[in-house]
Amino acid sequence: MYSDRFNILVQKLRLLPSVGSKSAQRMALHLLMRQRTGALELAQAIQDAVEHIHECSVCHALTELEVCEICQDSERDDALLCVVESPADVFAIEHSGSFKGKYHVLHGHLSPLDGIGPEEVGIPHLLQRLSQGQIKEVILATNATVEGQATAHYLVEACKHLPIRITRIAQGVPQGGELEYVDSHTLHQALTHRLLLNQD
Amino acid sequence: MYSDRFNILVQKLRLLPSVGSKSAQRMALHLLMRQRTGALELAQAIQDAVEHIHECSVCHALTELEVCEICQDSERDDALLCVVESPADVFAIEHSGSFKGKYHVLHGHLSPLDGIGPEEVGIPHLLQRLSQGQIKEVILATNATVEGQATAHYLVEACKHLPIRITRIAQGVPQGGELEYVDSHTLHQALTHRLLLNQD
Repeated sequence: MYSDRFNILVQKLRLLPSVGSKSAQRMALHLLMRQRTGALELAQAIQDAVEHIHECSVCHALTELEVCEICQDSERDDALLCVVESPADVFAIEHSGSFKGKYHVLHGHLSPLDGIGPEEVGIPHLLQRLSQGQIKEVILATNATVEGQATAHYLVEACKHLPIRITRIAQGVPQGGELEYVDSHTLHQALTHRLLLNQD
Repeated sequence: MYSDRFNILVQKLRLLPSVGSKSAQRMALHLLMRQRTGALELAQAIQDAVEHIHECSVCHALTELEVCEICQDSERDDALLCVVESPADVFAIEHSGSFKGKYHVLHGHLSPLDGIGPEEVGIPHLLQRLSQGQIKEVILATNATVEGQATAHYLVEACKHLPIRITRIAQGVPQGGELEYVDSHTLHQALTHRLLLNQD
């Protein structure tokens, strides 16, 4: 029904994350009925982005440059390296404004069942970067999921021989979290890693 | 942060319906990290669709032809015309397989407060089509919303002088609907327009 080109558009829109066939059809109709100029701008923006944006050769975040702006920024602490699973995590941490070191972006997390091992995740390149001796502390900021934890655990083992301090971002009750609604595993973590407030 | 082209891509993805800044960023990262080939195919599909898909000159549904396949289909009943608000509604009705007449697609519904009157909705073109004398019944299948009802009401008045049967799709409890959860306005409609099951 309608046209082949319409069906192809719907099918290609489904490549976007969380877009099913109903949403894709709605998007296609919206573009064709109400956003024809915008649609062409979107197509152009996609082509431009794919052509010019690639991974930073140092940290693997996305950039238009050979080495990204964060890696080039001399005001950031070269001795402090935050390891994350994806460029989206760099966004999130930068947005929090609470980190002034450098980043290293893995290609996701270890997932042996899917055939994703240390090589695929880019761990050899990270270890090579660490072995250059400039970095004094690695903050493991992989997700607090089973896979993220496993990846962090693997990295601790892999870095054992290096004279580098290895830390993990804290896990506990999120800001504004009400204990009643926090899952029991998080509560367990929060109790286990409780902070001492008086004495030293 | 990141690059201008990335920000432009995020901004353009927000043209899609129901896509906010967080989703747009996720989509952009997904395309750049996992779907670079697919992204280019999507861009191409958008350009192809905008270039080749336009409104059918008869019914205003979307088509690649001058006159769409439904309008050209000689097996469909030319005397029965279903009036809908958008091409998506044609999809929905075709999908139900319960209509074998022709369609006429309005440009949405009347919305005087937004400056959308009969002209903008394309009612003059519909009236012109009706005045050609081929159509014996018009089924008003605008949405069961306030605006859809108002549009249907306007059309009834506008067609008063024509020797055409005018009907409105039934409103009532949807299939599988439990009375307990049906809104009172729908129940009111369902009771008012109740069907006689015995006698004739």
